[in-house]
Amino acid sequence: MKYPSNSKKNYNKIIEYSNRGMNLEKIINEANKYYLDNNIALIYKKPTPVQIVKTNNNKITESFYKEKSTLDFVGLYKGRYIEFDAKETKQNYLPLSNIKDHQLLHIKKIIEHNGISFIIIHINKEYYLLNGEKIIDFINNNDRKSIPYDYIKENSKKLNYNYIKGLDYIKYLEV
Amino acid sequence: MKYPSNSKKNYNKIIEYSNRGMNLEKIINEANKYYLDNNIALIYKKPTPVQIVKTNNNKITESFYKEKSTLDFVGLYKGRYIEFDAKETKQNYLPLSNIKDHQLLHIKKIIEHNGISFIIIHINKEYYLLNGEKIIDFINNNDRKSIPYDYIKENSKKLNYNYIKGLDYIKYLEV
Repeated sequence: MKYPSNSKKNYNKIIEYSNRGMNLEKIINEANKYYLDNNIALIYKKPTPVQIVKTNNNKITESFYKEKSTLDFVGLYKGRYIEFDAKETKQNYLPLSNIKDHQLLHIKKIIEHNGISFIIIHINKEYYLLNGEKIIDFINNNDRKSIPYDYIKENSKKLNYNYIKGLDYIKYLEV
Repeated sequence: MKYPSNSKKNYNKIIEYSNRGMNLEKIINEANKYYLDNNIALIYKKPTPVQIVKTNNNKITESFYKEKSTLDFVGLYKGRYIEFDAKETKQNYLPLSNIKDHQLLHIKKIIEHNGISFIIIHINKEYYLLNGEKIIDFINNNDRKSIPYDYIKENSKKLNYNYIKGLDYIKYLEV
């Protein structure tokens, strides 16, 4: 496979190619670091919720993972509250089982309180930002157990990976 | 000690009295639950950050507490991002050693990005909400290693415990 060097279109293709299988959480964290370093936004991954069972001299001797009731990333952009999750699928659709009921309820609550909530989806080697409102719309108007690729494509912002900014998503948020 | 029953002032005294030694985190969580149940705000305590060292079949076999780099409570009120901490002191002042350097930096960042940050202080059996801006002002203009009670009293909103609403603080936020 050859990549002509003097074409922007093909350069983007190289990035896309080299990006295959790149960990979604990692490239979102790269963007968050870029936003922090450049004073654009303050967004971080929440700690994994862990249930502490036993401790001994402040050392944890027994604990287990708790199921998360909220979304993975939280933060602040131009005064506004942001909370979102990252989902990957190898299918040509996003199974709704990937979004737990309490997560969906949480997305609704955030929107009710005028916060910004969305999911970033890695599907068909592409990245999309799908607003919470669009997810709820889909669920309210469909009996399907998954969100098809076409719906995602038509109702999302397509995100591009950039080796400086990571998976740059913040510019698509309406604040 | 006697409490006349038909005086609002004295009734408040009873509440205050019965409230002695009440756990600060607990009464903030009570308020957060009230805000959630009554659709006023969406605020929660962050999970304790834990460093997972070893796992075995998704069971955590070794882990330890990580130092928190942010504040204890995070949330959303009328679209705005809120992050704050709770501090208790048995002295007539709040030792600045209670607020770690990285927490102070975080408060500054939140204010820069137009978020709302503050601390709730339990001091002299009273509760106060001190804005992040006032904390930074104090540190910038004093060489003292603690914030005296008088500064807190003069620059904060005094909070009251209410058996329905818990430690109601949200009404004092400027959104």
